[in-house]
Amino acid sequence: MTAVIDTENQPFPLVIRYLGIDTHQQPTVYLRRNSHVCKAEGFASASRVQISSEQATIIASLNIVDSDILASGEIGLSLSAAHLLKAPERSIVHVCHPKPIQSLSHLRHKVYGHHLNDNQMDSIVSDIVAGRYSDVHLATFITACAGKNLDQEEIISLTRAMLHAGDRLDWHTSPVVDKHCVGGLPGNRTTPIVVSIVTACGGVMPKTSSRAITSPAGTADTMSTMTEVELDLPVLKQVVQQEGGCLAWGGSVHLSPADDILIRAERELDLDSEGQMVASVLSKKIAAGSSHVLIDIPIGPTAKVRSQADAELLSDLLMTTGKALGLTVEVICTDGSQPVGRGIGPALEAQDIIKVLKNQADAPQDLRERSLLLAGKVLEMAGLAPQGQGLRKAEHTLITGAAWDKFFKICEGQGGFKKPTVAHYQYSWCSPLNGVVSAIDNRNLAKLAKLAGAPEDLAAGVTLEVKLGHSIRIGDPLLVIHAESPGALNYAIEFLTDRPDIIKITP
Amino acid sequence: MTAVIDTENQPFPLVIRYLGIDTHQQPTVYLRRNSHVCKAEGFASASRVQISSEQATIIASLNIVDSDILASGEIGLSLSAAHLLKAPERSIVHVCHPKPIQSLSHLRHKVYGHHLNDNQMDSIVSDIVAGRYSDVHLATFITACAGKNLDQEEIISLTRAMLHAGDRLDWHTSPVVDKHCVGGLPGNRTTPIVVSIVTACGGVMPKTSSRAITSPAGTADTMSTMTEVELDLPVLKQVVQQEGGCLAWGGSVHLSPADDILIRAERELDLDSEGQMVASVLSKKIAAGSSHVLIDIPIGPTAKVRSQADAELLSDLLMTTGKALGLTVEVICTDGSQPVGRGIGPALEAQDIIKVLKNQADAPQDLRERSLLLAGKVLEMAGLAPQGQGLRKAEHTLITGAAWDKFFKICEGQGGFKKPTVAHYQYSWCSPLNGVVSAIDNRNLAKLAKLAGAPEDLAAGVTLEVKLGHSIRIGDPLLVIHAESPGALNYAIEFLTDRPDIIKITP
Repeated sequence: MTAVIDTENQPFPLVIRYLGIDTHQQPTVYLRRNSHVCKAEGFASASRVQISSEQATIIASLNIVDSDILASGEIGLSLSAAHLLKAPERSIVHVCHPKPIQSLSHLRHKVYGHHLNDNQMDSIVSDIVAGRYSDVHLATFITACAGKNLDQEEIISLTRAMLHAGDRLDWHTSPVVDKHCVGGLPGNRTTPIVVSIVTACGGVMPKTSSRAITSPAGTADTMSTMTEVELDLPVLKQVVQQEGGCLAWGGSVHLSPADDILIRAERELDLDSEGQMVASVLSKKIAAGSSHVLIDIPIGPTAKVRSQADAELLSDLLMTTGKALGLTVEVICTDGSQPVGRGIGPALEAQDIIKVLKNQADAPQDLRERSLLLAGKVLEMAGLAPQGQGLRKAEHTLITGAAWDKFFKICEGQGGFKKPTVAHYQYSWCSPLNGVVSAIDNRNLAKLAKLAGAPEDLAAGVTLEVKLGHSIRIGDPLLVIHAESPGALNYAIEFLTDRPDIIKITP
Repeated sequence: MTAVIDTENQPFPLVIRYLGIDTHQQPTVYLRRNSHVCKAEGFASASRVQISSEQATIIASLNIVDSDILASGEIGLSLSAAHLLKAPERSIVHVCHPKPIQSLSHLRHKVYGHHLNDNQMDSIVSDIVAGRYSDVHLATFITACAGKNLDQEEIISLTRAMLHAGDRLDWHTSPVVDKHCVGGLPGNRTTPIVVSIVTACGGVMPKTSSRAITSPAGTADTMSTMTEVELDLPVLKQVVQQEGGCLAWGGSVHLSPADDILIRAERELDLDSEGQMVASVLSKKIAAGSSHVLIDIPIGPTAKVRSQADAELLSDLLMTTGKALGLTVEVICTDGSQPVGRGIGPALEAQDIIKVLKNQADAPQDLRERSLLLAGKVLEMAGLAPQGQGLRKAEHTLITGAAWDKFFKICEGQGGFKKPTVAHYQYSWCSPLNGVVSAIDNRNLAKLAKLAGAPEDLAAGVTLEVKLGHSIRIGDPLLVIHAESPGALNYAIEFLTDRPDIIKITP
């Protein structure tokens, strides 16, 4: 190929070499230490550099290379750098110092505890979406916004900024409904059931979900075990037009792309931020074209929200922020004292969902009841059932098989229904004594499922064999760990052995 | 070589391959995606992994490799991973999941605004020193401690934890004195002059300094242009025994090693934290065996400390924390309205120091006077001059040449005196109008010197040709940029062009 090179301004053409190194979300490029460009530009390791191809201009982190995995006139690209730069191997690029990132002064402002206005928040979020923030900058932003460090105004600014930074869908109809659970309750996978019931009743519920942040599974992870969730916009629109709803991953349609970047960084930190959660949830809902959203807040001693008072604060933030952006938000507080359903992990939760939708005798009753409660509320919000009649209508839709039919059709529309897979390794953990199940530690249970490999290993996780209040005899199974590798299984068993109180049996 | 491999517990021996990739401070290892160990252990990119050789066990970040820069049975090491692991190329190592990092729950506790006690702070600092924190974790810790997020008790805990995590020197004499400047004032390089004067008067002043954090030069950077600063402990002790003092880099003697790790991360973030600064300064001083320390706080509108009130708060923190740990701290507030001396950058500041010590006619007077003031105070604290007589004694020591002799001998003891080098590229910036210098922007001047390449490029930086109040005519040089590469020079010029008010001329 022939590249037009302006030898005056860009004196160091470099030839692209795909190094096939997966650096996770941080785009990274590699240059030889003795290359002309490093000497001339004064680059050092961890420098941020700007790379321009004919196709795109990106900012990446630099790793300096002393060995011959790279020649002096070459620039190595990590997988994410290659993906963003869109330039073919062996083509020519140019490298220079990037302009200083203007929004970093706003970021420091926030770190020092000051208030950010609309413009400052906008500039931070645009820089994040443009890929200008390194992992370290992202961690700083997340930390500076964590806990209660954002006030109501800032949460509105952040929500608006996240909304503006991505696409926005318009369904040319109203109401468009949605539901969301603030999480923290393993296995609480009601969404696919609610969407099936509501759309079977004629509602419009184009559901786009996240992957897991700090939990062992997100709705998108669970759905990905049963159908395709990475839909491009035309396919997504077609499914919604045909079925009234969908169950897709939000990231593939470029809604609130800042959220996807922040979520991946939060996952590594295992940090949740109240303000960022509100902005994340609501910007996604508005971007997805919703007019009404029902938010489920489970409350329990080891759930994400621990008390009624915390739930009320969060509820206020959600409703006030929603109102400022023209979205009707209703909140429902539910029991968060123990996991919902049996499975914890993408495929294991999918199996519970299928059982409920198919009205199977061994379907988890708590998942069924909770889904009906939420579906009933959404039907009422959408005007599809009179106040007080939603639950009955939801139940009828489930029992008649209309909900399963609709779920199957949505999956078919998204590329076909498939059965969730089963993990290769299992380990049953049995009770060491007779007694009653007196406490279940949601947080450590979620951790256990993650150590077993969830959500990356779709079939991995935990199935819970008991509920609070159950009477247990020595040797009764309490839970089963499912893993895709012996290493992950052993790691989870070791964790469990150190924490036998994860399921507390009182004699 | 023959490695003893326990095939039951460690089924996947891997052969070390040095990849020569410089990942800055984060140790990184590379594994093929299709390797048995990745599949068996469920490793993914950005996983934290534990690597054990016969020599050491470390934790590193994982990058997954899809190309043939690595074979399936090999593990690639970055430079820092190879350095920490201490194992020769082609030797055998084993990889597994690391134990969860216990202190991350304390870190999250702090992020959510809670108080950390002694034990929690200790466990965070030990994990940092053991290399268990990724760059992202470090950024989170720095951010969570930034601004005023640490209270007095926590600052004492952090100081103590940083002190405990490293070695501690004992000089078997008292008083052992030290001085420190909280920084923010470009070119304020009084330390080498003060140490030379005090030790020439018979004081004990074993000075270990940091490299630059967010500034264009630290004392260790400046000294490294004139002598060896990376001394091992026996050499350092010998120099102090012979000369009464030294001017070394603190990091090479393993004093407060947590500080060195945090400083490198702070540099990338360009963040300063009050509490961390206090802990950093005082832990270093106590670890270096000091009993008395004089702290210089420059105050000015663009210095690190902006007002007398801020200086008093900081002064309180320093004295209270020092007292809790048995260190006598005195504070002196100085004028921070403009840079001190002429040079900004390691070698340029070294040239100013040499001129002062040699009593040259063109020595910068402000640097000379400030050094004498501080040296006088230290002489009084050390009991080497009666109260009120320190300044006169310091001046006498300088004028007679005793200070220069002592400086030269210290450098000789550290490995020999050498002349600072001169940068390859210069650019003079001249006044566009007649007038008076009415303001100098310290922060942007420091940034300019850093863009020119300081402190990594030792000869790079800025020389200031004017002081506040000087009368200037059109075409008079205001400053000169010094750089080691055309790229860095252009980058600095561009920055300057956008900020002509860096030196304000009022007609």
